[in-house]
Amino acid sequence: MESMIKEPTTRNAINTFHAIMDAAEELFYKNGYHKTTVNNITQRAGIAAGTFYLYFPSKLSLYKHLLIQMSHDIRREIAAHVSVKTTRFEKEREGIKAFINLARRRPHMYNIIWESLYIDRELFRDYYVSFAKRYVRGLDEAVKHGEIRAIDTEIVSYILMGITNFIGLKVVLDLGNQNNDVDHLVDVVMDLIKHGLFITTPST
Amino acid sequence: MESMIKEPTTRNAINTFHAIMDAAEELFYKNGYHKTTVNNITQRAGIAAGTFYLYFPSKLSLYKHLLIQMSHDIRREIAAHVSVKTTRFEKEREGIKAFINLARRRPHMYNIIWESLYIDRELFRDYYVSFAKRYVRGLDEAVKHGEIRAIDTEIVSYILMGITNFIGLKVVLDLGNQNNDVDHLVDVVMDLIKHGLFITTPST
Repeated sequence: MESMIKEPTTRNAINTFHAIMDAAEELFYKNGYHKTTVNNITQRAGIAAGTFYLYFPSKLSLYKHLLIQMSHDIRREIAAHVSVKTTRFEKEREGIKAFINLARRRPHMYNIIWESLYIDRELFRDYYVSFAKRYVRGLDEAVKHGEIRAIDTEIVSYILMGITNFIGLKVVLDLGNQNNDVDHLVDVVMDLIKHGLFITTPST
Repeated sequence: MESMIKEPTTRNAINTFHAIMDAAEELFYKNGYHKTTVNNITQRAGIAAGTFYLYFPSKLSLYKHLLIQMSHDIRREIAAHVSVKTTRFEKEREGIKAFINLARRRPHMYNIIWESLYIDRELFRDYYVSFAKRYVRGLDEAVKHGEIRAIDTEIVSYILMGITNFIGLKVVLDLGNQNNDVDHLVDVVMDLIKHGLFITTPST
């Protein structure tokens, strides 16, 4: 998924561009994409209504740009934490933790990403298919190095995305208990991923 | 979460009630909740506009009833498959499979449930918190019987919901490959839950 939007290069234009993006992120979160108008966005950003169209041809193109930006931010954040680790176990741990911590700092993340399901289903599909592809590459590498079992890595990528997303949701929406203790949450995830859930020898 | 709606008891009224529910489910999926009007729903259901209000005080109350109905259907479907199994491993396997197969038959499920995030965030919270509570009860039982390890079952419930939801999404939206082979998908999930992902003895 590529953005059609060219980011500006002069200082004033950059400021205006980001004021529009920030206002939109806030309003999409608060009122939803469909209830937010371009006028709402320009008012909140404190700019003239027509200025919007110097940067974005439409509300949809702005949303797409925001989604792509968010996906880049997530990938960059995860990569920064993962790249300094050597084992796949540590990479997995740090990746999951980085995602959850980013979601805590930007609680709008889920809303903006999942709302694509209601704006244009293809955006939602592209988002997860491309995320999964990158995940698979890392997992295949780890299989090759004998760090993880020879298992269907495409399915595993969805399993791991599912775990990370739901633990992140739990934290961001404060579902149930212990949501301030990210380390404990990640410990339990890694314990399960490492040792499995079941007692394999019969209990006496 | 309890519905405020009393379902009708006479045959004609039951038919009208379900025609409204079915029309709403279809339209919410196709156009989203916010873009669907009560008029759209009555037109599609083939009933007079005023009739709607004999059954539902508002579009929101209809949506809530649909969400509660869906959550009952999911629970009932899972329970029917799980209750005939004796080990927690088999229960888990059948529960996950039942959810995915239900999602295939009712692809609107995700849209309707997740849209609560954009209609009233508390509905989304209630939905997952109450689902997790039931899950935890089953897991605690299995811990007590020595079938699964003494692990934080509340966190595990979100891990398992995350896995099930993302594998279900993969199937329903056809993300990536092998989405017609539900048995294989569930096999990989259970393999990972049972044996973990990592090779624990160093590879030679």
